[in-house]
Amino acid sequence: MRALRLTDNGPVLDTDYPTPHPESGEALIRVDLAGICATDLQLLAGYKGGYRGVVGHEFVGTVVAAPNHADWIGQRVAGELNIGCGECHLCRRGLDKHCRQRQSLGIIRRDGAFADFLTLPIANLHPLPHHLPDEHAVFVEPLAAALQLLEQCHVHQGQRVYVLGDGRLGLLVAQVLARTGCHLTALGRTPAKLGILAMRNIPTARTDDQEQMTQLLAHPADLVVEVTGSPDGFDLARRLVRPGGVLALKSTFANPLPAFDISSLVVDEITLVGSRCGPFAPAIRLLAEGAVVVDPLIHARFGLDNGIAALDYAARRGVLKVLIEP
Amino acid sequence: MRALRLTDNGPVLDTDYPTPHPESGEALIRVDLAGICATDLQLLAGYKGGYRGVVGHEFVGTVVAAPNHADWIGQRVAGELNIGCGECHLCRRGLDKHCRQRQSLGIIRRDGAFADFLTLPIANLHPLPHHLPDEHAVFVEPLAAALQLLEQCHVHQGQRVYVLGDGRLGLLVAQVLARTGCHLTALGRTPAKLGILAMRNIPTARTDDQEQMTQLLAHPADLVVEVTGSPDGFDLARRLVRPGGVLALKSTFANPLPAFDISSLVVDEITLVGSRCGPFAPAIRLLAEGAVVVDPLIHARFGLDNGIAALDYAARRGVLKVLIEP
Repeated sequence: MRALRLTDNGPVLDTDYPTPHPESGEALIRVDLAGICATDLQLLAGYKGGYRGVVGHEFVGTVVAAPNHADWIGQRVAGELNIGCGECHLCRRGLDKHCRQRQSLGIIRRDGAFADFLTLPIANLHPLPHHLPDEHAVFVEPLAAALQLLEQCHVHQGQRVYVLGDGRLGLLVAQVLARTGCHLTALGRTPAKLGILAMRNIPTARTDDQEQMTQLLAHPADLVVEVTGSPDGFDLARRLVRPGGVLALKSTFANPLPAFDISSLVVDEITLVGSRCGPFAPAIRLLAEGAVVVDPLIHARFGLDNGIAALDYAARRGVLKVLIEP
Repeated sequence: MRALRLTDNGPVLDTDYPTPHPESGEALIRVDLAGICATDLQLLAGYKGGYRGVVGHEFVGTVVAAPNHADWIGQRVAGELNIGCGECHLCRRGLDKHCRQRQSLGIIRRDGAFADFLTLPIANLHPLPHHLPDEHAVFVEPLAAALQLLEQCHVHQGQRVYVLGDGRLGLLVAQVLARTGCHLTALGRTPAKLGILAMRNIPTARTDDQEQMTQLLAHPADLVVEVTGSPDGFDLARRLVRPGGVLALKSTFANPLPAFDISSLVVDEITLVGSRCGPFAPAIRLLAEGAVVVDPLIHARFGLDNGIAALDYAARRGVLKVLIEP
């Protein structure tokens, strides 16, 4: 099969990569559509310097084989990426996404979705409603990550909330938070991206607009969500949160932040919440309801044969979601 | 009056410092007993490099004058240290302890407790039960700081909890957490200090005992409370918390921590909780009930005339609470 692999020499498109073989309890899935995520680009840029294999973890697919689970064959699915060992103290308490021996689709020791086929355990699969198009369903995984915030923080309508970052994930986070009825402002640098939110009646502000920033800094928020993944973004987010407030981190940082004054978190009683993968079921529901808009986030669509070009394009400044179609 | 002042040349004992004058709404309080806190020692060591004035914020005293509040005269009190402006957005939502214009007794622009007298707003005062001796009541403020953890984190009996640090505050934090019924282990370096907790049936472990530490690291906790205030302590605390767990910080760090991998908080979904001053009422109640033991924490008692020696002694390694009696 075709597969976009990360090698010691960078990404390579193989045309005769071995089609994976589903073990018992797993499904062989034909990838119908996949999305490029910032994590993929970080992996390519040497993030964690270790992963070698097929990249990609956001996908929609169709089950084509499932030993002992024939009823799944033909089912269109989204799939959770983490596969725990099932036996450690973390897996046994339902924290398999944090299992120290885990595989993660396209990230840790498990071939991913930029290929004709992939395998995943049946337990990782979520059937998709028929009327949910592939172009929306491919956002299930990043939308679930955005929704994870609501699993970790009690966001409510009395709160002032700032989302910092107008990238792929930031635009989903802002839409998810807007639904809580909180007093939300989305901050970013790109009028076109902020415009997607403004059309949804979400107030926005430009981080390069001194006047707007002065006003926001004078009214620090109860909750700030950092989705830029840049040290500057972290610094600004820290200044935008009120004493006793919550600073949620949705992005990893490619490099460790410079020396950081942790004492200020103590003095100001800030709570810092690290947040990663989230629940698929509500993400599927929201997309099926059309409650979260994703069409304007799709900036390009490439065939798998042009996968390398797709990765290059996705890495360009200002580009939102790029899809790969096998 | 006598007052132990921090000057450009270090601490100085004045014998003719002007007795403060209570404004309307304030009380003039005779200090009966005061306690030396790590914050005092950090101020002396140049912490925040700014405070000049009378040091000390842990005290028991008696109201000797109170314009328009004569009913308070003769009342024995503990006093909260923060005085907000009363008008900013933080004060108006009850966050006066975080007011950006606040005074803090003996810490920010407000003469403190290592003196014959101090003044505080009546609103900051808490009457003390008659049967609560001064030697216990002087622990109200640090015990309130320990209790603040329970205001910020839901600690319950299903949780594994580690308290890291067997100093003044750590020993109070461990006792407070033990009351929740959680599965607690207190970690420290000093057998004599850990022994105070062991006598209260609180399990303890030595951080310099390789075997014990290996075992604890293999069973990371749901909640770790960092009370060492050292970079090594922070690093160990981080390693002791499970993915998805909470790392509470009760200590300020004299220097910024070295470059810190914030991404690991995101990947492991760690919540970091900065925690400072806490509620006086439950602290008074617990001390009055004898539910928290403080006698073994008192290592020395000095007259105010020997206040400089008291500060020197309190700064020695291994010394717990040092009291100053005017």
